[in-house]
Amino acid sequence: MPHIALSPEHIGIRGALAFRPETARPMNELVEILLAGPSTLSKGERELIATYVSSRNCTHFCASIHGMIAAAHLGGDEVLVKQVKTDFARADISPKLKALLVIAGKVQQDGKLVTTEDVEAARQLGATDLEIHDTVLIAAAFCMFNRYVDGLDTVQPDDEALYRERGRMVARNGYVQSSKEYLTEVHSS
Amino acid sequence: MPHIALSPEHIGIRGALAFRPETARPMNELVEILLAGPSTLSKGERELIATYVSSRNCTHFCASIHGMIAAAHLGGDEVLVKQVKTDFARADISPKLKALLVIAGKVQQDGKLVTTEDVEAARQLGATDLEIHDTVLIAAAFCMFNRYVDGLDTVQPDDEALYRERGRMVARNGYVQSSKEYLTEVHSS
Repeated sequence: MPHIALSPEHIGIRGALAFRPETARPMNELVEILLAGPSTLSKGERELIATYVSSRNCTHFCASIHGMIAAAHLGGDEVLVKQVKTDFARADISPKLKALLVIAGKVQQDGKLVTTEDVEAARQLGATDLEIHDTVLIAAAFCMFNRYVDGLDTVQPDDEALYRERGRMVARNGYVQSSKEYLTEVHSS
Repeated sequence: MPHIALSPEHIGIRGALAFRPETARPMNELVEILLAGPSTLSKGERELIATYVSSRNCTHFCASIHGMIAAAHLGGDEVLVKQVKTDFARADISPKLKALLVIAGKVQQDGKLVTTEDVEAARQLGATDLEIHDTVLIAAAFCMFNRYVDGLDTVQPDDEALYRERGRMVARNGYVQSSKEYLTEVHSS
């Protein structure tokens, strides 16, 4: 049961966001820009970074939903998503994305662990400054989202099908729009 | 030296924010609402939570600037701020704030560490659901800001006077306004 009186009809971060719409707005905007806005990293790649960080933070809701959004962007390849969570070095992803995941994994622990060599390795594989910036900020932002979801003890269902369905919706419509549709759905049901 | 080409005229998070104005906007809005918006927690109390979390993450820039903003809100009491960083249980702050700092300290590590008993203790001392929510989100958000500042290896000066001066400005004008003034200052200097 959540630590505070969150509406029982909302799961995961949606319960927390619905509790405080003022802070929900900039949080939704941030994730929309980072994961769904214009970028030279594909949406699938950015969702994999978010999934990997959430998985390392052991936040079931975020790792599941972003894993399913990533899969939706990657032709439904849930096996690849699981491989990235468990052992990305052997996953069928680009060397550049692997180098960015090394950076993301360090930021998840402590930003000070990122070395000049980590950044240089990513750059040698074609990563731009903006891609490196966004990788650091996606990893940092998910350290916030994960702690928000866990720290309030929000409801994090086990049902994979539920995450798959919602993942497809977010992949199709983006975060801000999906959030509005979700709230409409819940309030009209 | 920062890992990516941040403008050398900006220190700490300002360099990162100036590099990517699209993400800076929601990040500034979030911190403005959480730390300077309407709340039953005083601005000094909220800045102490941000300072404590930044100090535990060992992010010098954030711990210094938010410590100085907190001090500015608390009649210049820098000794109290240092006491909160090092041993808040013995600091001259309210029992309710101490209970909220326990929660913030757990969120800084892992949101899953927060127990029903931690939340109940805060509630017994008068904390509302909204205060508990905001404490969790302030702690979570500073886990993002701290990793952003450290993960890009931004410039984090040692000069206490610099943080004191800027802390007073932010305490007076808020985050969004100070950010605009700062950018105007830098660009006209």
